[in-house]
Amino acid sequence: MQEAISHIRSEKRKYILRVQSAALKSIHDYMYENGVVQAMPIILSPETDPLNHPHFDASVEYYGQKLHITKSMILHKQLSLLNDGVDKIYFMSPNVRLEDGKLRESGRHLFEFTQVDIEFKEKTKEDFIKFTDGMIAEVYRRVLKDCPDDLAALDRKLAAPKLPLKVYESADLQRQYGEHFEKVASEAAKDPFWILNYKREFYDREDKKTRGYYHNYDVVWPQGYGEALSGGEREWEHKEILRKMNERNTDMKAFETYLGVSEQGLIPRTVGGGLGIERMVRFLTGQKHIKDVTLFPRVPGERIAF
Amino acid sequence: MQEAISHIRSEKRKYILRVQSAALKSIHDYMYENGVVQAMPIILSPETDPLNHPHFDASVEYYGQKLHITKSMILHKQLSLLNDGVDKIYFMSPNVRLEDGKLRESGRHLFEFTQVDIEFKEKTKEDFIKFTDGMIAEVYRRVLKDCPDDLAALDRKLAAPKLPLKVYESADLQRQYGEHFEKVASEAAKDPFWILNYKREFYDREDKKTRGYYHNYDVVWPQGYGEALSGGEREWEHKEILRKMNERNTDMKAFETYLGVSEQGLIPRTVGGGLGIERMVRFLTGQKHIKDVTLFPRVPGERIAF
Repeated sequence: MQEAISHIRSEKRKYILRVQSAALKSIHDYMYENGVVQAMPIILSPETDPLNHPHFDASVEYYGQKLHITKSMILHKQLSLLNDGVDKIYFMSPNVRLEDGKLRESGRHLFEFTQVDIEFKEKTKEDFIKFTDGMIAEVYRRVLKDCPDDLAALDRKLAAPKLPLKVYESADLQRQYGEHFEKVASEAAKDPFWILNYKREFYDREDKKTRGYYHNYDVVWPQGYGEALSGGEREWEHKEILRKMNERNTDMKAFETYLGVSEQGLIPRTVGGGLGIERMVRFLTGQKHIKDVTLFPRVPGERIAF
Repeated sequence: MQEAISHIRSEKRKYILRVQSAALKSIHDYMYENGVVQAMPIILSPETDPLNHPHFDASVEYYGQKLHITKSMILHKQLSLLNDGVDKIYFMSPNVRLEDGKLRESGRHLFEFTQVDIEFKEKTKEDFIKFTDGMIAEVYRRVLKDCPDDLAALDRKLAAPKLPLKVYESADLQRQYGEHFEKVASEAAKDPFWILNYKREFYDREDKKTRGYYHNYDVVWPQGYGEALSGGEREWEHKEILRKMNERNTDMKAFETYLGVSEQGLIPRTVGGGLGIERMVRFLTGQKHIKDVTLFPRVPGERIAF
């Protein structure tokens, strides 16, 4: 308990909160100016992101229905765009992922965090990249303008990135840097950058002609801070979704309703991504461990005081 | 499933989302201009709001620790102000309250919703009332300015309220309107208004001289839309907290760490409140049932499709 109290009381926490507030403000402003409507997050639902890495289940029962705590709102983002009048949407979406405790020391993992989760209809990855470049530039601009004293107090030097952010193919980086290319490229970079094409969850679109090429991406923070955003164009065709679920041994029972929608040919053609707030603030403020940007740390495997 | 799809696709949903986006934008702007820092919400924690009405438990286990899904961040709001450099804070905080299914027809209840949860240090209820009046005025101003077409499409007439909002004592309203005074007063009102003094949870401050008088409040939407915000000055003295927990038969084991902080005399003197986003949007857009302001309804006792 005393350690948790000291954590909240640490002087640097106030500088970090100010930088976070400026960054969040710039994102809300950018969304509003670009006509991206804000919908409210969902915490419990019968179907949630399957994720592509091992973790513990988190669910509760309510009136006989098993409800999962949101791991990501990817499925809900797609469904929200079923409305003909809504083309651009975002959620400030808390995600709970009960990760293995061995991730404790990564410095980049919390078992709870918040994503700015964005999805556009009838747009391409090029559209999304351009939009996101603008958003990231706005975050830098606002923080540099409103928080020079906070950055100085944190001994953090930031310089606005050159736009457009650079875009790399994962295969090229892998050739250059080896297996841990995202990490090594992050350490080598001065500005955030894009990496295209990751083999991931069923919902990221795979090219029909070039199997094994995925129309998805990460944005990576520079200076070794690692992943900033993950996203992609999405699968919308029922038979492609089924094929990829089969490939991944996905329990289809767990996506019964989603598959019911795709079977009717209703999943909209969308593109989007999720930007991790805490990882962004960790980068902006130059913190070694991501727990330092939170008031109430949620480190995998660590006991929680508050 | 077809009903859930139709719900998302309903034309009015887009107008409602635009009004919601404008309202949220005005709140973020107002907070930023007033130096209220934004911290990220917590979804799981060992101790959460006990609430003062019956509901089902929602918890999970993670590495041997029982974690509750947030019912409100009241305790965390108070603890966040332990930092000497942080005097004003807010969270966009999703709350999960697994309510009894009999609340299904109230039109005002969801078992998940989001609060703008605000807390100030070393301020009084008068300060908080003034701040909140300004925030509510900004919400009206922004929605009236940016969303005239959306309001017209929803056949909703709104007029900016006269400031300061009126303030009533609950005892006076009870004499005038009887037991259900909040409901009746809401139906009779043209503008939002304040009601002071409710007997509630242990953390709302009770007057030391006039026992039974609580330094807390609700804001109520007019036209029968009911409760908008709930809050109060908070207890900070350990012996008062213990006395009130005893009075309410609170399981003190469930607040072991919080009581550990109060025992050290560390709970800051704060005042604050939580404004329900969905209830606000229901009022602004004139919807009969609160589920109509959500894309993914979470009505007590009703089966969830998505």
